[in-house]
Amino acid sequence: MNPETPLPELCLSLAQRAKAAASLLVSANTAAKNAWLVASANRLESRADELLAANALDVKAAPGFGLTAASIDRLTLTPARIRGMAEGLRQVAALPDPVGEVREGGTRPNGLQVLKVGVPLGVIFFLYESRPNVTADAAALAVKSGNAVILRGGKEAAHSNAAIHALLAGELPNHGLPADAVQLVPTTDREAVGHLLKLNDYIDLTIPRGGESLIRRVAAEATMPVLKHYQGNCHVYVDASADLDVAERIVVNAKCHRVGVCNAAESLLVHAGIAEAFFPRIGRAFRERGVEVRGCERTRHFLPDAKPATEVDHAAEFLDLVISAKVVPTLEAAVEHINKYGSKHTDAIVTRDLAASRKFVQTVDSAAVMVNASTRFNDGFELGLGAEIGISTDKFHARGPCGLRELCTYKYVVTGDGHVRG
Amino acid sequence: MNPETPLPELCLSLAQRAKAAASLLVSANTAAKNAWLVASANRLESRADELLAANALDVKAAPGFGLTAASIDRLTLTPARIRGMAEGLRQVAALPDPVGEVREGGTRPNGLQVLKVGVPLGVIFFLYESRPNVTADAAALAVKSGNAVILRGGKEAAHSNAAIHALLAGELPNHGLPADAVQLVPTTDREAVGHLLKLNDYIDLTIPRGGESLIRRVAAEATMPVLKHYQGNCHVYVDASADLDVAERIVVNAKCHRVGVCNAAESLLVHAGIAEAFFPRIGRAFRERGVEVRGCERTRHFLPDAKPATEVDHAAEFLDLVISAKVVPTLEAAVEHINKYGSKHTDAIVTRDLAASRKFVQTVDSAAVMVNASTRFNDGFELGLGAEIGISTDKFHARGPCGLRELCTYKYVVTGDGHVRG
Repeated sequence: MNPETPLPELCLSLAQRAKAAASLLVSANTAAKNAWLVASANRLESRADELLAANALDVKAAPGFGLTAASIDRLTLTPARIRGMAEGLRQVAALPDPVGEVREGGTRPNGLQVLKVGVPLGVIFFLYESRPNVTADAAALAVKSGNAVILRGGKEAAHSNAAIHALLAGELPNHGLPADAVQLVPTTDREAVGHLLKLNDYIDLTIPRGGESLIRRVAAEATMPVLKHYQGNCHVYVDASADLDVAERIVVNAKCHRVGVCNAAESLLVHAGIAEAFFPRIGRAFRERGVEVRGCERTRHFLPDAKPATEVDHAAEFLDLVISAKVVPTLEAAVEHINKYGSKHTDAIVTRDLAASRKFVQTVDSAAVMVNASTRFNDGFELGLGAEIGISTDKFHARGPCGLRELCTYKYVVTGDGHVRG
Repeated sequence: MNPETPLPELCLSLAQRAKAAASLLVSANTAAKNAWLVASANRLESRADELLAANALDVKAAPGFGLTAASIDRLTLTPARIRGMAEGLRQVAALPDPVGEVREGGTRPNGLQVLKVGVPLGVIFFLYESRPNVTADAAALAVKSGNAVILRGGKEAAHSNAAIHALLAGELPNHGLPADAVQLVPTTDREAVGHLLKLNDYIDLTIPRGGESLIRRVAAEATMPVLKHYQGNCHVYVDASADLDVAERIVVNAKCHRVGVCNAAESLLVHAGIAEAFFPRIGRAFRERGVEVRGCERTRHFLPDAKPATEVDHAAEFLDLVISAKVVPTLEAAVEHINKYGSKHTDAIVTRDLAASRKFVQTVDSAAVMVNASTRFNDGFELGLGAEIGISTDKFHARGPCGLRELCTYKYVVTGDGHVRG
């Protein structure tokens, strides 16, 4: 595209080309899509030098963007990370194709056959922040699910994203797939996002992946549906009947296995009847691992070194070695706390009591409710969906991990032999 | 509620009470919900006199609102229509409960059981125009699917809606269900709608049912998801290989069976290879039934009494004895026309050719694609969903008829015995 093109026209052209590509992708063979994925994976590996060179430009410029050391690490590609990205594409190739999947079907009393069949959504606008491997992941998931995608990465990864995009998009025509199935917004001008968010005649879904302020801004401006992944303030509730070994193991895993992820625990709720037995154990485990506890008054009675918790702490996603804690008089109080302060992401109960487990599962309003299992299991791989494009905290369309099927919708296919309504 | 309450506070109170009711409804027994439906049905019939008296006030005031004779007919209740409304409630009672439905499930290699379970969306704000029976339908579908509903009917039916609402809501506590599960906006002030559309902390979904301008206004103002049912510009495409008897029967049924409904045909596409054989037959059938044809130049060659079709005609939902017509050179041209001018609602092909049928089904981007069957079959009863709250022309969340399951979302329920991630 001519770099002189005014921004509104450039965005309209991207969207129109994506829509044209999408109309071809609906009929693309699974075999062609898989061949593209595998060839792209091979190409990423065989041309790793180009990617590393492009990435080096981004890494060099990173301090100028004010990136922290941790962010620069996330931005940096290595041969091992490129192999990982390629492996991701091969894994998507191995997943079942959601397009054409007969989700339900039957024959009506009058002989009409009614099938509910998976079909692509159409065009997806995907915004993301600095990790360049997301470029490959998102392209893979979009095309495998029959959708054209418009990618908009962070300016910090502009060279890396352009190089990855060029390899993947360049491989599309070799497999009979439309070249515009995967496009990258060819400017880092922030206003391009605003223009694209107005194009609901062409774009069927926007997925913002990044900080909460990015997501809120996108949701406020978008004229099409937005699949949102707000924060994960995940709770573990230790019920009166919990096995203390299981409770300690799950709380420690949920909090400490990886602190910077959305399915890590940020809040601990303990039933009053077991608090005296449980807090000394979990306090010791937390101290060994350097976890700071911010607790209610009763928590601090059992854990004198805990800091006092504020309202903000109970609602916080710390993404750090910090956890809020509260003693609750009943399971109902735990559920009320979770539904008030939580983020509808993932919440766990540790219990041996079947009735408590049923009540918790039924009344906690979250995408995933875990019983005697760590909150860390809420992701696409662990739940069996394969790769995911994000974990939705919305209730509409898709909840929890969003894999290939969640990037699709369905149509009814109704077949008769001349049926008319009487 | 005090009628002096300022509008913003009144709306906030409605929404907060609905949310509180919704948190109780998630655990309501199917038996209680069904008992409420049956008792409400009986109550509508046994207290029909009250409903008829309230309705008479609306009918008397109708000319003052500028209602046409057809609209006044739709507004008018009769003993038979009240029995029909009661029968609708009993039918909803007979449908399976979507709450707690295990949609999918299995056990992961590590022994974790993963279930995907149907749960209510929460609070639904439902706006609708003048038919009072919709009040009972919407309340029934919402409560059966575990959702609290805020109803906002047209001012033309205010007395009828208030009477129906009072009977249904008054019956809720008799079955252990929260009284605020079904609320009616207690004012006809239009500004109330604007206030409610801002309350996305409490309301999970808005469903506007009415004219396109209402739906567009609601979609533009709403801060929560909106399930939209725009117009139905449904096509019948008569393929080169069509059986002419079947084609005539389906076109006549799709156009003439009921002209004022969204799944009636508004556009006829005829393959050039069969146009000469088909047009005289369908022209005769249309003349007999008083159908006006607005056709392309080639159509008018075969049907000299047809009027010329404009671009507007090809995109129109006539809801009348009018149909646009066009001769197309290929199936691909028919699909392109449908995807350009259609409304993603319902489109049909008449063919004997399997490859043509497969191509049409795959490439027409509509909620329902019919093969050798009338477009009139796209509704909840005919497709086996039971009662419906509308037919979505959106692609996100739900497409086509929206019944009980479409008013739900799901959660993952993951059960282990102390599982942690390694």
